[in-house]
Amino acid sequence: MNAEILAVGTELLLGNIVNTNAQYLANGLAQLGINVLHQTVVGDNEARLIDALRLALSRSDIVITTGGLGPTGDDITRETIAKVFGRQLVRDEHSMKVIRDYFARTGRKMGPSNEKQAMLPEECIVLQNDWGTAPGCVVEQDGKSVIMLPGPPREMGPLFDQRVRPYLAKFSDAVIASINLREFGIPESTVQELLDDLMKGESPTLSPYAKEGEVQLRITAKAATEEEALAICRPVAEEVKKRLGTAYYGENVDSLQEVVVKALLEKKKKIAFAESCTGGMTAGRLTEISGSSEVFECGIVSYANRVKHALLDVREKTLQDHGAVSEETAAEMAEGVRVRAQADYGVGITGIAGPGGGTAEKPVGLVYVAVSDGKDCYVRRLLLGHSGSERAHVRYLSSSNALDMARRLIIGLPQPDGTVRVDPPKLQAPTSFFGN
Amino acid sequence: MNAEILAVGTELLLGNIVNTNAQYLANGLAQLGINVLHQTVVGDNEARLIDALRLALSRSDIVITTGGLGPTGDDITRETIAKVFGRQLVRDEHSMKVIRDYFARTGRKMGPSNEKQAMLPEECIVLQNDWGTAPGCVVEQDGKSVIMLPGPPREMGPLFDQRVRPYLAKFSDAVIASINLREFGIPESTVQELLDDLMKGESPTLSPYAKEGEVQLRITAKAATEEEALAICRPVAEEVKKRLGTAYYGENVDSLQEVVVKALLEKKKKIAFAESCTGGMTAGRLTEISGSSEVFECGIVSYANRVKHALLDVREKTLQDHGAVSEETAAEMAEGVRVRAQADYGVGITGIAGPGGGTAEKPVGLVYVAVSDGKDCYVRRLLLGHSGSERAHVRYLSSSNALDMARRLIIGLPQPDGTVRVDPPKLQAPTSFFGN
Repeated sequence: MNAEILAVGTELLLGNIVNTNAQYLANGLAQLGINVLHQTVVGDNEARLIDALRLALSRSDIVITTGGLGPTGDDITRETIAKVFGRQLVRDEHSMKVIRDYFARTGRKMGPSNEKQAMLPEECIVLQNDWGTAPGCVVEQDGKSVIMLPGPPREMGPLFDQRVRPYLAKFSDAVIASINLREFGIPESTVQELLDDLMKGESPTLSPYAKEGEVQLRITAKAATEEEALAICRPVAEEVKKRLGTAYYGENVDSLQEVVVKALLEKKKKIAFAESCTGGMTAGRLTEISGSSEVFECGIVSYANRVKHALLDVREKTLQDHGAVSEETAAEMAEGVRVRAQADYGVGITGIAGPGGGTAEKPVGLVYVAVSDGKDCYVRRLLLGHSGSERAHVRYLSSSNALDMARRLIIGLPQPDGTVRVDPPKLQAPTSFFGN
Repeated sequence: MNAEILAVGTELLLGNIVNTNAQYLANGLAQLGINVLHQTVVGDNEARLIDALRLALSRSDIVITTGGLGPTGDDITRETIAKVFGRQLVRDEHSMKVIRDYFARTGRKMGPSNEKQAMLPEECIVLQNDWGTAPGCVVEQDGKSVIMLPGPPREMGPLFDQRVRPYLAKFSDAVIASINLREFGIPESTVQELLDDLMKGESPTLSPYAKEGEVQLRITAKAATEEEALAICRPVAEEVKKRLGTAYYGENVDSLQEVVVKALLEKKKKIAFAESCTGGMTAGRLTEISGSSEVFECGIVSYANRVKHALLDVREKTLQDHGAVSEETAAEMAEGVRVRAQADYGVGITGIAGPGGGTAEKPVGLVYVAVSDGKDCYVRRLLLGHSGSERAHVRYLSSSNALDMARRLIIGLPQPDGTVRVDPPKLQAPTSFFGN
């Protein structure tokens, strides 16, 4: 059972909007065990829409279109699909009523053009739209189904979930289930070599997806039930974890920050951040996670040395002798914010994000990350990105490395190779001024 | 001259990721005056990739592929396209060197699989990738061009802008030029009504693109030269600015933070942030902008009241009487961080991002934003999102509103309706401890 997603809209071809509908539908269809082998985008043009539709029908059992159901003149999906199937457009009275009620309810004036939205191919299955004015519909012919959905994601989404899923259930002979594993620190090419044999497997399949210095590994199997599919995935998932070692950081989790917050919640510990080149991004990422207020109270963005000294108790001598971008400063930032914030763990990040500020000795991409728990302080020197590399990339990888080192310290894993252990540095003013 | 975008990647068909590359390329091609009539997505499957490529070549002059150039086994774009054109893959020594240098520089171990990335179709035009390891390339045959680009947007974007644009310029008979205007604060539907007549225009065209509480307005015209095209756009651009009023914040700029940094650089002033619910996101957004170190020295993330009091001098009585999420606390946070950081402007943000923590009196989405320059302090009460709305959305809009209020204060524009002016509050410990 193959499905195909056909988006209709010149705004997509012009790059005015991103085709998020395709992802939403692909995801939903995969969950139903329906394969998607093609996604296509065409403009509001009858000839090209007809060609695209005929091609889709020639290779797929189900075609889902998005867009072109609106009231305006360039919304031609309904008419064109009816034409391809040789059907008349007939007014659906129930849809007409829904549209009238919608305008009444939202207190907006209904234009005559909106009546056009109630004109549907004869003998179609109507998909009532309670989230907008354009009803969806299904046309079945010669064992194929064409499902028309409106373009606005806030209408398309609920229509798919609440109207199309029940309709498609009857086509779904199996369920596809996946286990997602994430790792940080092993480059994609090395992951490939580590897991090469497993990636050749048919059931389950193992596919890597690299993004921003991380690799997500998706183990997928198809079976009669979700439980069976997951049971097929499990042994491979465990083998992948074993091979990734401490770089593996979570199953079915979304991010390093999610894992760090969970670990802190379990241990009832608190963390604090002192950030220079990342400028608050790391605290910002941690606080994306709801519940982070239990484990995070204080972050300090110390862009200026003055602030590193005054707010983080970094010694002036350290800044003079070693500079703001140094192992020593990173360590004092980590310990300084830990003490100041009365947290269990402190993280310090200082580096050169670029594009300016680099020297031969300290190039753009040089970043020091330190984590401290008051007993041990671990510092890592990183050289991130490359010549053409973007500021945003250096910053993001810096904060990812900081979150990964924090994760390792919190759950008691060894730090990455090349990390140096030092005693927590003596601070300029070791007394916390909280409460006194 | 027609181009077609062909994305290769099973992760797109599974809905793991959104095809943002297609929008980026469509947008860039439109600017070059090259029409895009089709976008297609296929998986990492040789047979279907060959079919898709042949179809694309049958109807388009230029085919741009994204993805499938990585080191892993399921990256098959290079091999498959070489096959379709009957060419051998030959090792490009320069690309090999670039890849080796990349690994040497980042101190990572290079696997044999990375050498695969330097294997390119014979007689192709190599597009050197300074942003990653996979070079792009162009294969020209029978008057058609196939341009292969890597999938990661961070590499694909600069490769297109810096390598492909110059290559494509020779195909372009006319130039499309655009003026992009951005506004914050007027909802999309209102913008539609304000600019309805202008949006009906043919040359220039005016298209709105709404995202995360902002609307970008793109005015586009086609002409023989860029100058002519821009001259056609200019009158409409000026009319749009007039109608948007103070909500308009920049021409051909990327973000509110960019405009704030520029305004501060011009005035040689400094800003500081005190963030609660946004958790450092606002400082993180400001420091995305290179050069921000000139205007930003200190940000404090005060998730706990303890920290608001101790680091920002927010009075304990204020926290007791009005709570952490209140006009009074926001004002004291803004003034507190301004004084502590010895900055010209201070920004305070406190609110309830959710999903938890809401009450009938103080629901999720209630946020107070304050900006102070030491003479005037402006506080705004916001009720962001709605019942179903997400933590990330509330946080992002909170920081956007803070940046917009800062922009208005810095360049001397009135604050949005509903903003309250108060005298800068007296702080618990008004002495700055910097330097003394």
